[in-house]
Amino acid sequence: MAANTYLTGIKPTGDFHLGNYIGAIKPALEASTAYDTYYFIADYHALNSIRDADELRHSIRSGAATWLACGLDPERTIVYQQSKVPETFELTTILSALTPKGLMNRAHAYKAARDRNDAAGVTDLDAGVNMGLYNYPILMAADILVMEGTHVPVGRDQTQHIEYTADIAGYFNHRYGDAYSFPVPKGLIDDGEASILPGVDGRKMSKSYDNHIPLFLPENKLKKAVRRIPTDSTPVEAPKDPDTSVPFQLLTHFADAEKVSEVRKRLEAGGMGWGDLKNELFEAVNAELGPKRERYEELMADPSEIDAVLAAGSERARRRARATIDRVRAAIGVA
Amino acid sequence: MAANTYLTGIKPTGDFHLGNYIGAIKPALEASTAYDTYYFIADYHALNSIRDADELRHSIRSGAATWLACGLDPERTIVYQQSKVPETFELTTILSALTPKGLMNRAHAYKAARDRNDAAGVTDLDAGVNMGLYNYPILMAADILVMEGTHVPVGRDQTQHIEYTADIAGYFNHRYGDAYSFPVPKGLIDDGEASILPGVDGRKMSKSYDNHIPLFLPENKLKKAVRRIPTDSTPVEAPKDPDTSVPFQLLTHFADAEKVSEVRKRLEAGGMGWGDLKNELFEAVNAELGPKRERYEELMADPSEIDAVLAAGSERARRRARATIDRVRAAIGVA
Repeated sequence: MAANTYLTGIKPTGDFHLGNYIGAIKPALEASTAYDTYYFIADYHALNSIRDADELRHSIRSGAATWLACGLDPERTIVYQQSKVPETFELTTILSALTPKGLMNRAHAYKAARDRNDAAGVTDLDAGVNMGLYNYPILMAADILVMEGTHVPVGRDQTQHIEYTADIAGYFNHRYGDAYSFPVPKGLIDDGEASILPGVDGRKMSKSYDNHIPLFLPENKLKKAVRRIPTDSTPVEAPKDPDTSVPFQLLTHFADAEKVSEVRKRLEAGGMGWGDLKNELFEAVNAELGPKRERYEELMADPSEIDAVLAAGSERARRRARATIDRVRAAIGVA
Repeated sequence: MAANTYLTGIKPTGDFHLGNYIGAIKPALEASTAYDTYYFIADYHALNSIRDADELRHSIRSGAATWLACGLDPERTIVYQQSKVPETFELTTILSALTPKGLMNRAHAYKAARDRNDAAGVTDLDAGVNMGLYNYPILMAADILVMEGTHVPVGRDQTQHIEYTADIAGYFNHRYGDAYSFPVPKGLIDDGEASILPGVDGRKMSKSYDNHIPLFLPENKLKKAVRRIPTDSTPVEAPKDPDTSVPFQLLTHFADAEKVSEVRKRLEAGGMGWGDLKNELFEAVNAELGPKRERYEELMADPSEIDAVLAAGSERARRRARATIDRVRAAIGVA
């Protein structure tokens, strides 16, 4: 068993945006140098919302292709499909027997669904809630624990996920710890400025704010999207404050330090218009993402490579999961 | 796929009594001639209450040994350990995504737990409820559906189980039926007199009434248990009503028709005391169960045969489950 196993789930979707790239994909890829890394396409979590087979199949491939195109090295990182590691679901069943229902009642995603019903005047607060949503924290705990994950990146607003996993591991360890104990995972809470990308309106980039720029826009559409970022009417020749400019903030995430410093000086001196700034931004984003977009399109044009990567990674992941579940089975008395 | 697949779960426990033998084991063994039969030791259902590894391990073997000793033919019937068919737990995860939480809220076992809390004045009605209990109906549906079970024996008070399984199969079939449909299983509701054995107090034999006689009591203890069945003080020479006599009712389940008829006449004529009747009962029960008890003890003395039967049966069961889950995976879009 490796001392440090870094594990993260990848939402199966083709809808990644620049904020995901800066906030999740890049940091996770950097982590892959310091840990044993396990990245999985969370297809059974997605089943709670994607009920069309073709859409789900496409989303799994698109999610994997995005990460591969962004530089995920499947030799160094074990990349796999959640649904291809059935040991996860066996562990879910085992952990369910040890998890009090009260814990699930307090889960944020479930409570949010009830609150929405309440706000809409729906009397049955469980209306529209499916058991996949309700059981989600146990499945997530099993995702992590079956790989003996020790480090899991979470957003500031998702710390409950990792607390629940630690609680559930604790129930097991308390009861069966003499025979086998799960490592209790730690959340890596990333709330540094470096990983928060503003959206076109200056708030954090997010699909729910509709202020996002998709990750792999074709070049001409990317240019248009950058051009459409709202700016004020300060004339070209006037000095400008880079620190209140959304395009400049975006530029700091994509251009190198030298370029950022040069543009900062030009804006503060006056004589650089918003259009010039947006050209610099487009060039920087396109330089970083252009080759990745090409690779993504290549992968998606013939998915056999994606499928092979996921199949091989899933086999490697299963070996790790099998070792865990064998010890768990012996500990609880079914083997 | 066989047209008729009869499936039943076996509680992993060493605590079978004569009522289980007459009410469940014998009818299920008789069914094995008319159907493709799948009998499984429900070890992950048991995990909700058995948290000691040695106890669970013993109970799994004891449950299997009981059925084998009673005549289960592992060539004709596929007998397996639930936990060794991981496809079941993958299907549980899939079905959870399609099952409304409201259905679980109305499940009898869960409501009974809440009612107990309520009656005890506990404010949190979910206190002491674990997620294994709450998710139980989905796991049970997966047990049945993964084998494409078509016929499932249920007690009169357990019809909700099979209704829930039909509902859950329906959610899947409604959404994905173009690609794959589960057969919707039927409950075989056995409420005939033939399968209800009275306990020593005349009510239905049940552990919860504490009126039961254990199945594999050693001969001398069985004799004592039969002697202790309460009877009235009608003198030996007085005529007796067989139809209000518990030992006579028990005798009808264990002795052949000729013997039953002879004893009935002797009781009605007078001259046969309760002691004589109990001797007849002991002889009949012991004749039927003695060889089975010996076989049970032989199996438990060296569990390698039980383990081998369960391992071989579980492999056969997995082949069937694998075929189902492969079709389900293709239908939902993860393969």
